[in-house]
Amino acid sequence: MPNPTAAMLVIGDEILSGRTRDSNMHFLAQEFTKHGIDLREARMVSDDHAAIVGALNALRAQYDTVVTSGGIGPTHDDITADAVAEAFGVSIGIRDDARALLQAHYDRQGSEFNAARQRMARIPDTAILIENPVSIAPGFTIGNVHVMAGVPAVFQAMVASVLPTLTGGEPLLSQTLRIQRGEGDIAGPLSALAAEFDDLQFGSYPFQKDGVYGANVVCRGTDGARIDAAMTRLAALFPDARA
Amino acid sequence: MPNPTAAMLVIGDEILSGRTRDSNMHFLAQEFTKHGIDLREARMVSDDHAAIVGALNALRAQYDTVVTSGGIGPTHDDITADAVAEAFGVSIGIRDDARALLQAHYDRQGSEFNAARQRMARIPDTAILIENPVSIAPGFTIGNVHVMAGVPAVFQAMVASVLPTLTGGEPLLSQTLRIQRGEGDIAGPLSALAAEFDDLQFGSYPFQKDGVYGANVVCRGTDGARIDAAMTRLAALFPDARA
Repeated sequence: MPNPTAAMLVIGDEILSGRTRDSNMHFLAQEFTKHGIDLREARMVSDDHAAIVGALNALRAQYDTVVTSGGIGPTHDDITADAVAEAFGVSIGIRDDARALLQAHYDRQGSEFNAARQRMARIPDTAILIENPVSIAPGFTIGNVHVMAGVPAVFQAMVASVLPTLTGGEPLLSQTLRIQRGEGDIAGPLSALAAEFDDLQFGSYPFQKDGVYGANVVCRGTDGARIDAAMTRLAALFPDARA
Repeated sequence: MPNPTAAMLVIGDEILSGRTRDSNMHFLAQEFTKHGIDLREARMVSDDHAAIVGALNALRAQYDTVVTSGGIGPTHDDITADAVAEAFGVSIGIRDDARALLQAHYDRQGSEFNAARQRMARIPDTAILIENPVSIAPGFTIGNVHVMAGVPAVFQAMVASVLPTLTGGEPLLSQTLRIQRGEGDIAGPLSALAAEFDDLQFGSYPFQKDGVYGANVVCRGTDGARIDAAMTRLAALFPDARA
């Protein structure tokens, strides 16, 4: 059975303006790979209502699972929850369960649970809360979409909350061989090997630094013994290669 | 006049598997921001023909300019050029101009210009070559789409080749204020300021580390004097904030 598929939607002007370099997609990609979920696509859109609704509806129709990051804080540019509600055609308002969590948190802190902070209790109808052990304000799951915060520490905690609830597949294993030969010398033998081991995926990632050049050839699949067999063959073709 | 819009398409299994963390999108975002081009969306897809064709056709219809990275090398998983040709409905083959560049390069190196390397001379009809001063194998421009390599050093060189040919707008300027207050205390005053300075964009990016928390508030726009005015007002509201 093929592994379940997933997509990620990264929401925020700060990524597309180049101010911040996204790390959440990279983190999720690694976690999903370990869990046997096939991350097929990622999109990054700005804090724009129509762009979020459009991307979300496209992705949730096409993939088994969608994870979003960003735009669920207390400020005026945090518009993700409302966009998700519109995408699903459900209403949204301050919800009692989320409000209770946040009220208790700010009471403990001695901070005012003001109007801005109450925005973080706006949750679409029918959604289930995702726990946020870092800063309490919850994410939520609706349908096949998991809506998470953009702050990396919070995002990672929310992924840890959700991951055990997702159906995984066989973890994707990989081995890498570093070959200091021009990629054009590797390509022919690699292509023949890929045709023979057609249950595996082979990627070639060239490098070039300080006059040293070559390619890292990565073999991916779910059967470790097959990967061993393929990489042993490849290594024999390029005796100076290193794992 | 609003700034021209752009999107980026990052192609490659290595990004979506978490093996490699993309840096090309972040680089392009910064360059476009300086050049006054508004990067509105980025997509990352795997080395899959249909996924590349679909994403490319969606993006080139919606934005003024599209930049792609990845998938134009000599190996069997380098399928970008063929996908671009299909998206534009043009034929593709080994082209004389690209072949001449590569032949001369491999002659100088004393390497064989073999079948794999000749794949890098496959260029869609009507496309114009993009110079690659790093490793010679060219990118290409067709319509509003600029097809570039995934290796960061080569990608950056190709961006430098293409950027002067693109119509820019007014560079997007920004100022940041670091405010060590809960984002929920910042949100109300910030929202009022954003409503008053509605020609500017305001973003709030919370941080939380080693018990210190707060938010970086970023104000963006094309009029430096207006940004100064807005940030002076914001700083007066939060006297302990730092630029």
